[in-house]
Amino acid sequence: MTTAELTLPAGPVDLRTIPTDATPGFEGDKEQGEKALAKLGPGLADLQERLFAARGTDQARSVLLVLQGMDTSGKGGVLRHTVGLIDPQGVRITSFKAPTKEELGHDFLWRIEKALPARGYVGVFDRSHYEDVLIARVRQLAPPEEIERRYDAINAFEADLVAQGTVLIKCMLHISAETQKERLLARLDDPTKHWKYNPGDLDERALWPAYREAYQIALERTNTEVAPWHVIASDRKWFRNLAIGRLLHEALAELGLGWPAADFDVEVEKQRLADEAPIT
Amino acid sequence: MTTAELTLPAGPVDLRTIPTDATPGFEGDKEQGEKALAKLGPGLADLQERLFAARGTDQARSVLLVLQGMDTSGKGGVLRHTVGLIDPQGVRITSFKAPTKEELGHDFLWRIEKALPARGYVGVFDRSHYEDVLIARVRQLAPPEEIERRYDAINAFEADLVAQGTVLIKCMLHISAETQKERLLARLDDPTKHWKYNPGDLDERALWPAYREAYQIALERTNTEVAPWHVIASDRKWFRNLAIGRLLHEALAELGLGWPAADFDVEVEKQRLADEAPIT
Repeated sequence: MTTAELTLPAGPVDLRTIPTDATPGFEGDKEQGEKALAKLGPGLADLQERLFAARGTDQARSVLLVLQGMDTSGKGGVLRHTVGLIDPQGVRITSFKAPTKEELGHDFLWRIEKALPARGYVGVFDRSHYEDVLIARVRQLAPPEEIERRYDAINAFEADLVAQGTVLIKCMLHISAETQKERLLARLDDPTKHWKYNPGDLDERALWPAYREAYQIALERTNTEVAPWHVIASDRKWFRNLAIGRLLHEALAELGLGWPAADFDVEVEKQRLADEAPIT
Repeated sequence: MTTAELTLPAGPVDLRTIPTDATPGFEGDKEQGEKALAKLGPGLADLQERLFAARGTDQARSVLLVLQGMDTSGKGGVLRHTVGLIDPQGVRITSFKAPTKEELGHDFLWRIEKALPARGYVGVFDRSHYEDVLIARVRQLAPPEEIERRYDAINAFEADLVAQGTVLIKCMLHISAETQKERLLARLDDPTKHWKYNPGDLDERALWPAYREAYQIALERTNTEVAPWHVIASDRKWFRNLAIGRLLHEALAELGLGWPAADFDVEVEKQRLADEAPIT
């Protein structure tokens, strides 16, 4: 599987022309896809440990995975199945909800900056600063000129992040309206899933075309060379999980991180242990 | 396997009389132990989801797992292998290092309170407020009367936590000095593990008897009915991981959490979906 096919080409974006049920770059079925994801696990764990080990060195880097998508597109599933493959000590997940009063008293990027992963960590944003040009645009939560300002602000912010040494992986989980309908019905049909359902979900769903347009504008305007977008066909959960696993693996592997050299004399330390007084 | 045998009896504590290489309550070898832990996974995931689902209801609870132990006792291994079985969205891990200047400007519990898991979450403390009566005692980082005050402060704090609805699971990972020596040597022998080693580790190791005494006093004085200690034989990594998995599973199961009932009319919502205008 190559990940090149997941990268959004530059230029205008028409989400209706991008399939939601394809498996670009992967020749295999669900069972093979799930096996391929499981096989990524040990490699991901090794790469994440190298990232963590390098945090105090001049090779220190961090990774930020941004997950955006309509309700039921599977952000939680990616966290469980893909991010769950990594040692939880090295992961920092932030789920962005409607901003608090305090957050609204600041620029929209204020709460985002506070949640950035420290060097050595893999940060994951479940929703992100993109909400501020998505729901904010659809629901007119800010004046048009402020929304307009934000696209450039996001690009400048992300360029700076990358320049600081953060590897940024932006993924839009792309589902069809039909798939969302099936998933909402499945939640309604299963009493153990009622807690995940909110009647407001249908109010948002009714605005599907407006959200699609807001996504298209955001994707087009923030699809920069240093921080490109990936549009992940997400009608098939297994493909969505695998595709993001591969992106994460590829990004970590590209860092080419070795293991930090000892900053002490290994033989001296062995001798100290050999010579120690008995512990009773 | 029962977990009763993991609970520390009330009264004076002599760690030298508690085996570090036993497998209390489990009849099986490493392979069977690892299988038993893997088998806990789906149940743990289900229970954690119930905890999360209940967070907005009057059944809302939280769980706090406190991990203490000497260097190389395996706190990181428990995070990776046991806590790693749970959906990372529902977990909040805090690794407590030496306090910052800002933290030192406050009471020792200030940074602990800030890191408490919100309702619905499983919090894990990798080291904790117990450092303030362990290294603080051994290294005389605070006056004796302040150390003395802290045992009661911890008991009052933990009793309040439990009264608020937090399930507190306190585990001391118990290894022998010989096991620590083997693990430190293994780190020195493997260049991919040099980053985990610090010459200061041997300085702390030389104080093993003082740490043992500090642990014994802390365990005895904070082994309360509402917040008992578990001493986990940790020379065998697989047993340590399994034992803590069982404690976590048992604590979650005891909450007896069901699924929150819908606070909307399910049939009305189904009808709304059935009646919606086509999305194009």
